[in-house]
Amino acid sequence: MRLLRYGPAGQERPALLDNNNQIRDLTGHIDDLSAAAYSQAEMQRLAKLDPQNLPLVEGTPRIGSPISKTGHFIAIGLNYADHAAESGMPIPAEPILFTKAPSSLCGPNDAVVIPKGSKKLDWEIELAVIISKPAYQITEADALEYIAGYTICNDISERHWQIEGTGQWTKGKSAPTFGPLGPYLVTPDEVRNPENLALELRLNGKLQQSGNTANMIFSVRQIVAYLSGIMQLEPGDIITTGTPPGVGMGAKPPFYLKPDDEMVLTIEGLGRQHQTVAAQA
Amino acid sequence: MRLLRYGPAGQERPALLDNNNQIRDLTGHIDDLSAAAYSQAEMQRLAKLDPQNLPLVEGTPRIGSPISKTGHFIAIGLNYADHAAESGMPIPAEPILFTKAPSSLCGPNDAVVIPKGSKKLDWEIELAVIISKPAYQITEADALEYIAGYTICNDISERHWQIEGTGQWTKGKSAPTFGPLGPYLVTPDEVRNPENLALELRLNGKLQQSGNTANMIFSVRQIVAYLSGIMQLEPGDIITTGTPPGVGMGAKPPFYLKPDDEMVLTIEGLGRQHQTVAAQA
Repeated sequence: MRLLRYGPAGQERPALLDNNNQIRDLTGHIDDLSAAAYSQAEMQRLAKLDPQNLPLVEGTPRIGSPISKTGHFIAIGLNYADHAAESGMPIPAEPILFTKAPSSLCGPNDAVVIPKGSKKLDWEIELAVIISKPAYQITEADALEYIAGYTICNDISERHWQIEGTGQWTKGKSAPTFGPLGPYLVTPDEVRNPENLALELRLNGKLQQSGNTANMIFSVRQIVAYLSGIMQLEPGDIITTGTPPGVGMGAKPPFYLKPDDEMVLTIEGLGRQHQTVAAQA
Repeated sequence: MRLLRYGPAGQERPALLDNNNQIRDLTGHIDDLSAAAYSQAEMQRLAKLDPQNLPLVEGTPRIGSPISKTGHFIAIGLNYADHAAESGMPIPAEPILFTKAPSSLCGPNDAVVIPKGSKKLDWEIELAVIISKPAYQITEADALEYIAGYTICNDISERHWQIEGTGQWTKGKSAPTFGPLGPYLVTPDEVRNPENLALELRLNGKLQQSGNTANMIFSVRQIVAYLSGIMQLEPGDIITTGTPPGVGMGAKPPFYLKPDDEMVLTIEGLGRQHQTVAAQA
């Protein structure tokens, strides 16, 4: 399945994409794609529906985040060796865990807004997963069974707030529109190999980031098992797994997002995001 | 109002405490005290109920966290100058923001469990607030209007994971039972002055932490306004506001929690927590 939410911000409806890439409405089958909707039981129930029997959505509505702002939004830092190098930081001995505010979530094609006081707004294409079952102290071997699916995250980062403040990164990762997610969540049965997916981010048409999840320092299964050793993961928790090299902070000289910049993000098999940068109104 | 949840873990029912300290059941008036329940509209609706018309709950049921595991669990570090000194850290120039996993929430009198691999489990009594309205870029003068109420949090911390790992504190703040909250949320109309409340934590009967919210480096209104400048706060977001001196890490020599230790926490006007420490089964 490819699950998504469509409609105006704050009024999204649940849906799936059928084999012809047409949106089919899930209203009546599930209230919303909230954290609870991504539980294994709910996902199994939705998987039994025949998309051809669901109402076809006409036109090209806005796409929202594939999950409402209800879960825990977890992120992993410096998870590609070459990105750690460009950031001037050592390769971590264990995954670096930080979080993003759930209110930073937005649709994959929404404007990314430069908040008041921001000086250094940067991009990070990442593979994100959503959790489907409570996971505490699980093993790497079992970890992929706890994943509802995969999607794209742009882990928008305000570097001045993230790094030059108090050292806790959440601060520079959490403003509204700092978490474009989607366009849809792809269930594991439709992802060939999450540990070998090409990622690309283009800025104003120029290839800025290019990588492959095969080059992660800590793989998806290692991250999920590791996190489950220090907290209980819950259905609907989002984990965005780190970015390959090519961010603005790593350029020589560094440069950052400005109004009207265009970002296009793709991950193999997971679709495409397209954001325009805007100054705060 | 004093709002609480009672019953077995995972099956709590919403309730309030009446003027005789008796529990009155709110089932039928609200589904649960989830993040959404703490929105201003819902709180105003509940405030109109006459407690004497609500069913009396007999006996002494278990008390849960006053909010389900649905919101963003935000914490402020080193917010009392004397605690910063005992931690060997400078007084911060701005609030230090980190987060706790929502799954760390538990009832005020539940056992605090030492997780596998934990070496340095510590206590931190703190004043916590819950947010009632979306708050983005608000002023200090307005900040208290965005607060649904006040309660006690024991910000349980694994110092080895928090400090000796990758530098991001979330890691040592997030295991199950690391967030005892309650016993109840007290609405602002029943709190004399949140900026002048005595806090005490006793460990095995001995006074270990003693402080007053008047000694915070950043006041509640400053914290809420500051956070709203870097993220949008949402109804149901929990903010725990930092701890006074007297934690185990700050003792000479340092010492940490062990099985069968007893913690009793009180904040003026906000009730009492009592936890026994347990090894993981």
